[in-house]
Amino acid sequence: MALVLHHYWRSSASWRVRWALALKELPWQSRALDIVKGEHRSPEFMGVRSPISHVPCLEIDGRPLTESVAILEWLEETYPTPALYPRDPWMRARCRQLVELVNAGTQPLQNLIVLDAISHEPAARGAWAARWLDRGLTAYEHALATIAGERGAASSGPHSLGAQLTAADIFLVPQLPNARRFGVDMAKFPRICEAEAAALATEACGSTAPEKWQPTE
Amino acid sequence: MALVLHHYWRSSASWRVRWALALKELPWQSRALDIVKGEHRSPEFMGVRSPISHVPCLEIDGRPLTESVAILEWLEETYPTPALYPRDPWMRARCRQLVELVNAGTQPLQNLIVLDAISHEPAARGAWAARWLDRGLTAYEHALATIAGERGAASSGPHSLGAQLTAADIFLVPQLPNARRFGVDMAKFPRICEAEAAALATEACGSTAPEKWQPTE
Repeated sequence: MALVLHHYWRSSASWRVRWALALKELPWQSRALDIVKGEHRSPEFMGVRSPISHVPCLEIDGRPLTESVAILEWLEETYPTPALYPRDPWMRARCRQLVELVNAGTQPLQNLIVLDAISHEPAARGAWAARWLDRGLTAYEHALATIAGERGAASSGPHSLGAQLTAADIFLVPQLPNARRFGVDMAKFPRICEAEAAALATEACGSTAPEKWQPTE
Repeated sequence: MALVLHHYWRSSASWRVRWALALKELPWQSRALDIVKGEHRSPEFMGVRSPISHVPCLEIDGRPLTESVAILEWLEETYPTPALYPRDPWMRARCRQLVELVNAGTQPLQNLIVLDAISHEPAARGAWAARWLDRGLTAYEHALATIAGERGAASSGPHSLGAQLTAADIFLVPQLPNARRFGVDMAKFPRICEAEAAALATEACGSTAPEKWQPTE
């Protein structure tokens, strides 16, 4: 299949999809959009590719699919190896719970379009973003403790769900640069920081990180 | 399995789970929480059941699972019939895209805790909620047109993905009372209204609607 990814280097959701494609070792063409310049609002992109004019958008044999959750689940069903979701149904439910704590519970409340609606004053934007990032990461850290308790403490790390990196990590880690940028106290989240360090040590995570896709000009 | 649902009668995400349980014809015990009275912030509920202190929370043999997407996907994998997601992998991707347009793209921006952070003044709260509801439903309506185009116009309705009601409808329909409450012009969304009417005509949707769970005292 021909895969074309429309993405923005700094977008956390774009990083999720770049990372998943790297883990699945799938070749893809890059179409970089600069959302700060409004390139995602062009008539061509709005009309054809993305109903909410969001990156990322994965074109699959010419058919545009948005929403990173839908993209990752489609990749998993189409290219099952290596797995991004646990095999065990209960752990898969836990994985999807963690994914949504980021995707629905955290990211939407601190993205660019919402910050623009809150204020054009940096301190007010930062306070708003930090509030929701702190709340989302608190929920995530708490969920990790619940899950570790279910599984026995010995198997709690290093990744979100134990020894195997999963979709939960792919959603968590790209959120964390924003948390630091807005001054969230990461010392409150030791398990999150452990999972982040374990992910950043892997090739697929590092090679798809925002700084690797930042335009040089 | 013993299923206990912690829910709030008026919460759209609670309706999603009540509806899915009804479609699967699963027996469940009801634990009603009043989030306006802060019952979801009690130490017992925060500590044991829900990391972000959100309803709904489905207790499955005593294990608490939050996030309605994770709950519906778990129900689907554990009790596959009747199916809430299409069998075809591409249509399943489209279904999950629609689910996330509501779950991540719309609902989080207009829920109670966010409105409380925006303003205590009704007009300001309403304008904020209407803005994001209108944007989310515009994206959903646009996605329905894209999907109908892929499938051929003859099979575009009545439900979001055609003849079969799916998880997409289960996320869409509970969002619409809020859209009306905040004055969104629903005449702009004819396909959404068609899908809503088709869903409301079904037993499982109507019997799980908020008004059926509103406390009588």
